[in-house]
Amino acid sequence: MKKVGVAILGLGVVGGGTYKILNAHREFYKKNQNVDIVVESVLEKRAERIVELGIDPAIAANNIEEICSNPDVDIVVEVMGGIEPAKSFVLAALRAGKSVVTSNKELYCKYGHEIEKTAKEYDAGVFYEATCAGGVPIIRALLDSLNGNKISSITGIINGTTNYILTKMSECGTSYFDVLKEAQTLGFAEADPTSDVEGFDAAYKLSILSSIAFHTKIPHELIYREGISSVNPVDIAYGKRLGYTLKLLAIGRCGGNNVEARVHPAFISSTHPLAAVNYSFNAVYVSGDSVGEVMLYGKGAGELPTGSAIVGDILFCATHSDFSYSPFKNEEKADGAVKFVKNFESAYYIRFVVADKAGVLAKITSLLGKNSVSVNKILQEKNDDGDMEIIVVTHSTHEFSVNKVLEEIAAAQDLALVKTVIRVAE
Amino acid sequence: MKKVGVAILGLGVVGGGTYKILNAHREFYKKNQNVDIVVESVLEKRAERIVELGIDPAIAANNIEEICSNPDVDIVVEVMGGIEPAKSFVLAALRAGKSVVTSNKELYCKYGHEIEKTAKEYDAGVFYEATCAGGVPIIRALLDSLNGNKISSITGIINGTTNYILTKMSECGTSYFDVLKEAQTLGFAEADPTSDVEGFDAAYKLSILSSIAFHTKIPHELIYREGISSVNPVDIAYGKRLGYTLKLLAIGRCGGNNVEARVHPAFISSTHPLAAVNYSFNAVYVSGDSVGEVMLYGKGAGELPTGSAIVGDILFCATHSDFSYSPFKNEEKADGAVKFVKNFESAYYIRFVVADKAGVLAKITSLLGKNSVSVNKILQEKNDDGDMEIIVVTHSTHEFSVNKVLEEIAAAQDLALVKTVIRVAE
Repeated sequence: MKKVGVAILGLGVVGGGTYKILNAHREFYKKNQNVDIVVESVLEKRAERIVELGIDPAIAANNIEEICSNPDVDIVVEVMGGIEPAKSFVLAALRAGKSVVTSNKELYCKYGHEIEKTAKEYDAGVFYEATCAGGVPIIRALLDSLNGNKISSITGIINGTTNYILTKMSECGTSYFDVLKEAQTLGFAEADPTSDVEGFDAAYKLSILSSIAFHTKIPHELIYREGISSVNPVDIAYGKRLGYTLKLLAIGRCGGNNVEARVHPAFISSTHPLAAVNYSFNAVYVSGDSVGEVMLYGKGAGELPTGSAIVGDILFCATHSDFSYSPFKNEEKADGAVKFVKNFESAYYIRFVVADKAGVLAKITSLLGKNSVSVNKILQEKNDDGDMEIIVVTHSTHEFSVNKVLEEIAAAQDLALVKTVIRVAE
Repeated sequence: MKKVGVAILGLGVVGGGTYKILNAHREFYKKNQNVDIVVESVLEKRAERIVELGIDPAIAANNIEEICSNPDVDIVVEVMGGIEPAKSFVLAALRAGKSVVTSNKELYCKYGHEIEKTAKEYDAGVFYEATCAGGVPIIRALLDSLNGNKISSITGIINGTTNYILTKMSECGTSYFDVLKEAQTLGFAEADPTSDVEGFDAAYKLSILSSIAFHTKIPHELIYREGISSVNPVDIAYGKRLGYTLKLLAIGRCGGNNVEARVHPAFISSTHPLAAVNYSFNAVYVSGDSVGEVMLYGKGAGELPTGSAIVGDILFCATHSDFSYSPFKNEEKADGAVKFVKNFESAYYIRFVVADKAGVLAKITSLLGKNSVSVNKILQEKNDDGDMEIIVVTHSTHEFSVNKVLEEIAAAQDLALVKTVIRVAE
């Protein structure tokens, strides 16, 4: 039976989960996959973590060189996170002819081109299923199953922390900050939650997913990004009454050379399959020209779900001898021919506070009409503070037209105060 | 650039879709997958179908031998359906060293063991993503992505025709036969709908999926099977009020050597992701020990969605040089050590018509209690015909206990008439 040696770089949440799965399932893989996967080495500064996981301290390496020169190590699992030293370690492993499995979305998003080039040069495999959506096998689906399609859009809920917070806010009507604090206490949000709540994490993942789907590099810095920290439970509640659920969506669209890539809070119809994706679950909804609509759903984070993706990659790598490299153009920069659309096509939810007097609604709708923004739904009522509020949901239109309306409303003194603008995904 | 020749056996719905996709996307695959996929040959009796699809009649083969001896053909796509001549053609192609891609669930379910053995012997690849759930990439997910998991259950909506019928019945309250007739007119159901509505098609697919998931052969003839032809819209409506949606579910469960495999109508909580899978959509919900819950959702049938799965397999086959064979034990018969459970664990929905007199409910609940069947929900009311009805939903229990209760109720004269029994999935 083929024996395959694994080294794990970093024994944090995902590294620990990976070790646990490999350790518990060794006989199971021998029996059912005909391969003996052995953890030959680990790299972790915190000696207590090695003890905690019950790992033999004899296999703890002192540095990456020991792992690269260890002939028993075939696959290096990088689950350290961050750019350095992860990047140098991954490149060193590939140069030593080891295959690499990684969960590091920031690294892969920013340096995937360099990693893949090096892997190819040294005839090593590189696998990154665990970078996006935890245990959901979306990367293999895009690379190996849906690749017969021209994909026109990807819509994802790909950050568990923000989805947890928005689900809680929606269910309890609690404020963003209260839910964030609770999520931090429960371990669902980091002490510094910036990367999650401001949409950086989702943008890294969208960059990886849409680069595969659209066969062209979508650099994360060209992705429009807006976080959830200013979301108000009042709008979630109004949205619900209008048939919408609020989610942090990562949206990629591609038509010819035009690409839209954006991460922002968005309402989605409560009957859409993505609306039912709650708490730390993730899902990615893909539209392809042959397959139509496909959705993959599952746990987006956690030691075992993400470990499941890592171990799936390890098993694939261990049982295949030729590595086909990502056929998408994982370049350093975007192709000059690709036009990144900024004037998004979307519907919009707009909440105004208005003076409670005749003619206000007429004036607002006339400004909308003048700018060719047509109205889908309107709700007007007094809020709990006694202020009159108008909520307008537009039909699909262009972002620039909506901005123009909002400017004109601001210019028309005493007409209305714009409280919230949220895109509505269709 | 590598050129890969394809022969298509059968130009029915799926064969036609496959041809259309390959033909329309040839340049796209050359550019993005670095492979030139050329349809070199087709085998189809109906000359008009060749004309209709715009295929050059010069590439139409007269028989399978011409295809097997054609050195330009690398991959044979079998989309004829049925056992013979599909089986002989597939085996002949493999023996000629061609790889095979098939959508034939009945063939793969019944003769997968022989096909895989032959493929291995002749160093050819064999791919069958299109056998289950159309464009949903569930087979590759089970084989290559979730294979690090011990999978404890698979629950699928894997027959589009029955899901269409049940969705329509649920939305309109129409009878089974009326909806079936409409579905036949619209082309969503076959003239002879037996294979779909009696659950044979779903059982073939469940056999394939659960054999992969549980690493042991689950022969279709050992799968409990019950179709939808006796479903009454009255029960769908009662179920809805109790928070349930009726689906034809294919359920596989595995714990140690015990396996449950069954296809039958079942209520599922209306908040479960599977409850939102409507019309001809399919979905498969998988529980694994590491990944937790994962669901894959998409179009379960149709020329282009199923063609998408076929083309994904063609591209994978064309861009990989080593074929790893399914690591599951695709034997002819079930392993003797596996115990096929018949005394299913499930909750049950039972509708009785009762005499409108005191003490009936007490007698029924006492018979349930005596047999250790505990009650979760009860609804009692007069139906439109003026009959008193009692609906009981039990907690999870054993099928044999429920059968015992039903026998005792039948034996107790004038107590209650059992109108319907439907399992409730949890």
